[in-house]
Amino acid sequence: MMPGRGPSMELHRTVAEIAALVQGRVSGPSARSLACLRAPERAGPDDLAPVFRDSARRALESSRAGTLLVHDALELPDVAGRTLIRVPDPEAALDAITAACGAPLPLPEPGVHPKAVVEPGARLGDDVRVGPLAYVGRGARIGRGSVLWPQVYVGDGATIGDDARLHPGAYVGAGSVLGARVVLRPGSAVGSEGFGFRQDAQGRHVRSPQVGTVVLGDDVEIGSHSTVDRARFETTRIGAGTKIDALVHVGHNCTFGEHTIIAGHCAFAGGATVGSHVMMGGMSGVNGMATVADGTLIGSYTLIDDDTRGGGEVLKGIPSMPLAHWTRQVLSLRRLPGLIATVRDLARRKDDRGA
Amino acid sequence: MMPGRGPSMELHRTVAEIAALVQGRVSGPSARSLACLRAPERAGPDDLAPVFRDSARRALESSRAGTLLVHDALELPDVAGRTLIRVPDPEAALDAITAACGAPLPLPEPGVHPKAVVEPGARLGDDVRVGPLAYVGRGARIGRGSVLWPQVYVGDGATIGDDARLHPGAYVGAGSVLGARVVLRPGSAVGSEGFGFRQDAQGRHVRSPQVGTVVLGDDVEIGSHSTVDRARFETTRIGAGTKIDALVHVGHNCTFGEHTIIAGHCAFAGGATVGSHVMMGGMSGVNGMATVADGTLIGSYTLIDDDTRGGGEVLKGIPSMPLAHWTRQVLSLRRLPGLIATVRDLARRKDDRGA
Amino acid sequence: MMPGRGPSMELHRTVAEIAALVQGRVSGPSARSLACLRAPERAGPDDLAPVFRDSARRALESSRAGTLLVHDALELPDVAGRTLIRVPDPEAALDAITAACGAPLPLPEPGVHPKAVVEPGARLGDDVRVGPLAYVGRGARIGRGSVLWPQVYVGDGATIGDDARLHPGAYVGAGSVLGARVVLRPGSAVGSEGFGFRQDAQGRHVRSPQVGTVVLGDDVEIGSHSTVDRARFETTRIGAGTKIDALVHVGHNCTFGEHTIIAGHCAFAGGATVGSHVMMGGMSGVNGMATVADGTLIGSYTLIDDDTRGGGEVLKGIPSMPLAHWTRQVLSLRRLPGLIATVRDLARRKDDRGA
Repeated sequence: MMPGRGPSMELHRTVAEIAALVQGRVSGPSARSLACLRAPERAGPDDLAPVFRDSARRALESSRAGTLLVHDALELPDVAGRTLIRVPDPEAALDAITAACGAPLPLPEPGVHPKAVVEPGARLGDDVRVGPLAYVGRGARIGRGSVLWPQVYVGDGATIGDDARLHPGAYVGAGSVLGARVVLRPGSAVGSEGFGFRQDAQGRHVRSPQVGTVVLGDDVEIGSHSTVDRARFETTRIGAGTKIDALVHVGHNCTFGEHTIIAGHCAFAGGATVGSHVMMGGMSGVNGMATVADGTLIGSYTLIDDDTRGGGEVLKGIPSMPLAHWTRQVLSLRRLPGLIATVRDLARRKDDRGA
Repeated sequence: MMPGRGPSMELHRTVAEIAALVQGRVSGPSARSLACLRAPERAGPDDLAPVFRDSARRALESSRAGTLLVHDALELPDVAGRTLIRVPDPEAALDAITAACGAPLPLPEPGVHPKAVVEPGARLGDDVRVGPLAYVGRGARIGRGSVLWPQVYVGDGATIGDDARLHPGAYVGAGSVLGARVVLRPGSAVGSEGFGFRQDAQGRHVRSPQVGTVVLGDDVEIGSHSTVDRARFETTRIGAGTKIDALVHVGHNCTFGEHTIIAGHCAFAGGATVGSHVMMGGMSGVNGMATVADGTLIGSYTLIDDDTRGGGEVLKGIPSMPLAHWTRQVLSLRRLPGLIATVRDLARRKDDRGA
Repeated sequence: MMPGRGPSMELHRTVAEIAALVQGRVSGPSARSLACLRAPERAGPDDLAPVFRDSARRALESSRAGTLLVHDALELPDVAGRTLIRVPDPEAALDAITAACGAPLPLPEPGVHPKAVVEPGARLGDDVRVGPLAYVGRGARIGRGSVLWPQVYVGDGATIGDDARLHPGAYVGAGSVLGARVVLRPGSAVGSEGFGFRQDAQGRHVRSPQVGTVVLGDDVEIGSHSTVDRARFETTRIGAGTKIDALVHVGHNCTFGEHTIIAGHCAFAGGATVGSHVMMGGMSGVNGMATVADGTLIGSYTLIDDDTRGGGEVLKGIPSMPLAHWTRQVLSLRRLPGLIATVRDLARRKDDRGA
């Protein structure tokens, strides 16, 4: 393999074919054949390169791409021999191309592999695939069309909706309830016992039984090595369409709304409540008593200690504050060493004058 | 399932029966039958709701619960028809109820499942359960009554005490020593090789052999996807009763005392020392040279760079400082932009006066 | 086991034998037999203790070690009966001793265990070891001498170089390409699908196909529960010799140079670029648009939001700044509460004078 030229997605289609796929408008030669989909900085004359608005300038200056996928409204200098495919939404068009031309992730064979373990009383819907070395417990139910890759664990009595995707090493604790089209990435854990202890008179930590469950709504996705703990009693709940990235910890009894998106390494202490359509940057956390309002935007490295106000607030910092305050603090801080010198000088001059 | 009404814990007991279980004092009707255990905000007239001191006010204002589990000393307005079960420690009482009435986590069948792999020379105590697809290496010893769920890995020569619980996907490296009643949650790793390298003359990182081991004391619990690395040589050691939450990294040659409690996402660089009865909030870290004294309380997002002083210090911040200093800094910072304006004004007026 | 005296590495060699192994210079008795390798604070008269420069003073004051492994240039008071082995690089000498005398991690039996699953079309080189309950997909290639511990997953068409080490529970996604001598620690995931979504008109997050791959260069090591996502299209790339510790997340389409070293809990948003010979402390992050220059040193809890300047910069803070600025800010902040009081006082005196 050439350095800097990794496996790229082969297209083997003409400009006209790709344009039809994305309902795009072509300027320049449309009969040319496209070899690969590549980023502008690596694409050659036979390749297609997607250009998003924010990378447009850099892409144009240096790219040798023969064909560009660009936004309708992007103004570009005319380059002889270069073909443009114009679309209203380049991100969506790129997804259409990768979906049509990219190799999908291979699935285990249909049915239950002889080296999987499916306990008595488990019920599997039509077209379920259970890979080798996967485990399905007593009384578990797996919905139609769902896929369990090798080494997945589904505990007793867990319920999984239709068309779910459980990647290798994913764990679903006993009695957990997962909606349709849920995706658990490699090594994620849903329904593990929560971290609940009380101290006895000697200062020892005694485990509180964790007998509740977890419910994930339809279309929830949980990233690699993320952990969603079952409730102490009642239910830890993640609303439909919410997506959680890798290495996130959701403590017992948390409640998440719908269509919320959580970046990697975030942490939610037991009992935290997060609304719908929230977006949260990486390494951020929410206190167990706090409620994050619908539509709140939370930066990275941000600690939500208290209920947020709603109204589409943008929060940042430890402890969190409105982003504008945080930015002002950061800028002020840069001036602090100079400020100290100025004040020292003012105080000295005042003293000199015999105040 | 009704939205907002997840699987709840059924009680099917009378108030008198629950009161007997928790040695509580009843006021109001005691013959009534209790349907479910639910949080105050979701409980109905037939349900039991626990009320802790800090949630008491909110719970009282809105709860429709017919029966409340409350602290002895809590003063409550008399509500007609409402039953109270009064106890000295509602947390402990709730644990007694969930232990008695909640469904315990189902165990693998007794004995070694035919689809487990137990290598020659492994010794298993009485009443050990080894689930399918679990692995026990050569010469490993598993104590009486211990449970290995499916897909657990126990390396060669590892020793596990009595009544341990190793959840699916847990890893125990060769030669690790785990005490009695140790709990490893799904996907935790104990005894992995540490991250030790030295640079050669070309700036390449050469791995240092990691030939030491890990010893976990009795009653230690390690959370999901947490990692406790074996020592470079000698021993990484976690004292009895210490509880570590999810996604924590304990580097090689760390030493932890007893009955310490560590929240999620914390990190301990190789060689860090943490005392007994320490409590540490999430996302915090300890430098590899530092020692945290017994009884220290460490907030979230806190970096311990140096030895702490002991005496029950409460520390917070990056770098860490006494909590009171940190709070004062946070409050001062809010005034910094205004302070800059004031000083500019003072300096201008001074200059105007021809200083 | 004695408290504080864990399993230690037995040497059973004379001082002369160890000195020959490390090409060291002996002062004091060289015929004495060495029992164990122990840290200075735990070593006894029959033990060997390594002393690094920075721990030298403490080690000397209290150690009862009969033999010390020390740096050539270290000046030590003459202690009667104590043997010194002097070497130019005590770290490298210690590695030579642990490599020669420590127990190496036991390997699975040679060949493919009958309880492993190797799919048709997989090609295994000579001397490959595949432990029980491991999975190798269709068309995967495993290079000569590589070791797959139990419960490893290698997806369809993945390629693994010679002499790789895949520890229990490691995941290699379909089509990933791993170089020679790559090490994946327990539960690490390479080639998982990235966290890529776009919002539809209703604010729902629609998954973008992730059809690219991951390429790890020779000698790359990935820590426990770390995740390296495959590219959206094209390649996520980690250069040769780069070492990544536990619980790190590398998003889709990141590019890392060679011989870079990343501490635990770091995060790299999709598309981030990290140069060669970078060193990065724990809990730090790089924005998806940012490029970290070769040779940059990044502290812990540091957020790189923008391209760095290169030239061996040392960066620290959220947002990142040169370490010297950060240190000055930290020191200035301590003076901020006092500064506020001083300014209040100055302003009052000014007002008193009727300005």
